[in-house]
Amino acid sequence: MTLTRAARLVTLEGGEGAGKSTVLAAVHAVLAARGDEVVATREPGGTPLAEDIRALLLAPRDEPLHAHAELLLMFAARVQHVREVVRPALARGAWVLSDRFTDASHAYQGGGRGIDAGLLDTLERDVVGVQPGLTLLLDVPVEVGLARVRGRGAADRIEAEREEFFERVRNAYRARAHADPARVRVIDASQPAEAVAREAVAMVEAYRDSLG
Amino acid sequence: MTLTRAARLVTLEGGEGAGKSTVLAAVHAVLAARGDEVVATREPGGTPLAEDIRALLLAPRDEPLHAHAELLLMFAARVQHVREVVRPALARGAWVLSDRFTDASHAYQGGGRGIDAGLLDTLERDVVGVQPGLTLLLDVPVEVGLARVRGRGAADRIEAEREEFFERVRNAYRARAHADPARVRVIDASQPAEAVAREAVAMVEAYRDSLG
Repeated sequence: MTLTRAARLVTLEGGEGAGKSTVLAAVHAVLAARGDEVVATREPGGTPLAEDIRALLLAPRDEPLHAHAELLLMFAARVQHVREVVRPALARGAWVLSDRFTDASHAYQGGGRGIDAGLLDTLERDVVGVQPGLTLLLDVPVEVGLARVRGRGAADRIEAEREEFFERVRNAYRARAHADPARVRVIDASQPAEAVAREAVAMVEAYRDSLG
Repeated sequence: MTLTRAARLVTLEGGEGAGKSTVLAAVHAVLAARGDEVVATREPGGTPLAEDIRALLLAPRDEPLHAHAELLLMFAARVQHVREVVRPALARGAWVLSDRFTDASHAYQGGGRGIDAGLLDTLERDVVGVQPGLTLLLDVPVEVGLARVRGRGAADRIEAEREEFFERVRNAYRARAHADPARVRVIDASQPAEAVAREAVAMVEAYRDSLG
């Protein structure tokens, strides 16, 4: 397979407590404003089987989940999501707005767990095959993001990681943006939620207009 | 990672109805006969999480399981199996006798589903990292094997495949043996079960003696 870019696939990325939910709703509204179909989805998940895989990924259990197993489960869920949801929606001309996508694996499994970039690139090309036209990276200092999520109750398996893990995730996300600034746009998510949403909406409107 | 061969990892491979269960018991007995520890295990599965992945893989459901997702789930289960069961057992000097291993992915996902050999090789090297010292391939014509399993009751998702699929699986298995005859030994499993078991036991005894 080859990796092709889908103009109408827009993804939202960021660490814990970056405020993705507020931004998702605002971006959804601006994409739908001209009457286009918008499919809002998320990873890991987006199909019944992918949600079952998500449950395996996030549930705390006694057996350690090894980094490569986590990686392959993430990409297995992504294959189902891409084949069952993303590609059919793009084929009928809809926008797809995904809460996380392959960049999250580069950040969490690559940066966070130390998995080799070559393996990630192989999986992205050979089993995913599609890259977003636009990615909004909500960037927030780790301690600010973690303080925001701590009020939310019980942590899942990944939220329970140590702060150094999230620093590596953040650095990997920023490296993705640095390597491909035309696709991955960074938003300072330490701002108040409304300011973050306003910036995201402006970026998406400019992007949509640039497609003509 | 690099792919290393583990002398005391012995795997049993073959299509549906090849008679692996009978052979497993006989080989287990011959390996244990000198007082060595023998860990008998199976794939997909072998740990609680890997068995949960196995359940996702085999359950019939409305959502189609795409070939690459099947591949990645198989390898995710294999990572857990290798890290939690196979490597610890080998490290303490035990024999590991596995009902299927990576060769099964080359046969079922490679031959059966048409997945590129390069991707399989990458996963075998980068996420599994260990190859059996000896693999017994129980080879049986597809129609003979299928006739044997048809009496067993409800078919799982893979058993319900068409005959052409199993022909491709068989051919891929035989190609593995042809490419690496010192490791992958073919046994004619259309013989009566006792004759197959006798041949398997003789091969394993000779192999064990060759290790000194």
